[in-house]
Amino acid sequence: MRRGKTFIISGPSGVGKSTVLHALFADWNDLYFSVSATTRAPRVGEVDGKDYHFIAAEQFRAMIEKDAFLEYAEYVGNFYGTPKKYVDEAMEAGRDVILDIEIQGATQVCEKRPETVRIFIAPPSWEELERRLTARGTDTPEKVQKRLLRAKVEMETAGNYDYFVINDTVENAVSELRAIMCAEHCKPNERMNQIMNQQ
Amino acid sequence: MRRGKTFIISGPSGVGKSTVLHALFADWNDLYFSVSATTRAPRVGEVDGKDYHFIAAEQFRAMIEKDAFLEYAEYVGNFYGTPKKYVDEAMEAGRDVILDIEIQGATQVCEKRPETVRIFIAPPSWEELERRLTARGTDTPEKVQKRLLRAKVEMETAGNYDYFVINDTVENAVSELRAIMCAEHCKPNERMNQIMNQQ
Repeated sequence: MRRGKTFIISGPSGVGKSTVLHALFADWNDLYFSVSATTRAPRVGEVDGKDYHFIAAEQFRAMIEKDAFLEYAEYVGNFYGTPKKYVDEAMEAGRDVILDIEIQGATQVCEKRPETVRIFIAPPSWEELERRLTARGTDTPEKVQKRLLRAKVEMETAGNYDYFVINDTVENAVSELRAIMCAEHCKPNERMNQIMNQQ
Repeated sequence: MRRGKTFIISGPSGVGKSTVLHALFADWNDLYFSVSATTRAPRVGEVDGKDYHFIAAEQFRAMIEKDAFLEYAEYVGNFYGTPKKYVDEAMEAGRDVILDIEIQGATQVCEKRPETVRIFIAPPSWEELERRLTARGTDTPEKVQKRLLRAKVEMETAGNYDYFVINDTVENAVSELRAIMCAEHCKPNERMNQIMNQQ
């Protein structure tokens, strides 16, 4: 059985990443969505093991020391991280793994595992991103401009990503994601082993 | 409009490359199949500009001197080559180009244009390739063994190809080819220009 691969998916605020990921998982059972561990308390309605793996701070620190995270970070006093365990189990079972993380986390993962594939979800244009951010109605015009500026900086920082998927429509974005995942399984290393071992 | 890309498709005798390419072109109008130029005489039924561009030896030599080929070779006294002109016109018109050439030709193309994507069509197993070669009924068992050995050598030589597509079924092979072509258009260089220029 072919081993799974890990794909990191990042993208700026407002680009529609959650909608795209939701559509991707609706179509495809062979994927594992990596659930982060966190030391923050569960909010009402959040389910342990589904929204997050809720763990105590001592346990989180012990895991850091055991190098049990692919990446982790502290954010307003709480820790968040990607446990290696579930990712590895899914890949061993032949499932591709999706990590929904930011650029800094992606850099940490790729330092440990350079074979990880990084995909950045980009807007079709800056105008369209501005329109989407404004349409959400949650931010002031000044906040929208700040997010827009941040998106541009993020996109330049993501220049070393492997792929850019443009979210013009959810359907196109999902189809590009699936194409990338399929193509990555056609890389020589994986295929040579597969064929050469069948003498 | 997005510019086309060039994809080289190689594969050993008996792997079913022509069938796969035929199915690919049946599905997809956006592709240009590069027609080679040759100095050999047309055979009965061959159409100029479709099967080959039939040209005189002096013209072929003049084109070599003008660096008008992506690759060329001599084979039993005749020249065969890939004219740059049609490939470039197709890419400018936004069409992806398929070059059906051998590994040596692929090396020449990539020396001139390292951005060219190389795909090797591989059999699902050596046993299956042997079965297919035998089923054609055109070769003696000794010839089949020679072809099989050559296929193994070719495959090792193709280790620097970008992708290996396994022709287990034509449908799977075509779907992998399409995925690769789609994924290659998601590479950062192309996409960064596309998005950054829309400030």
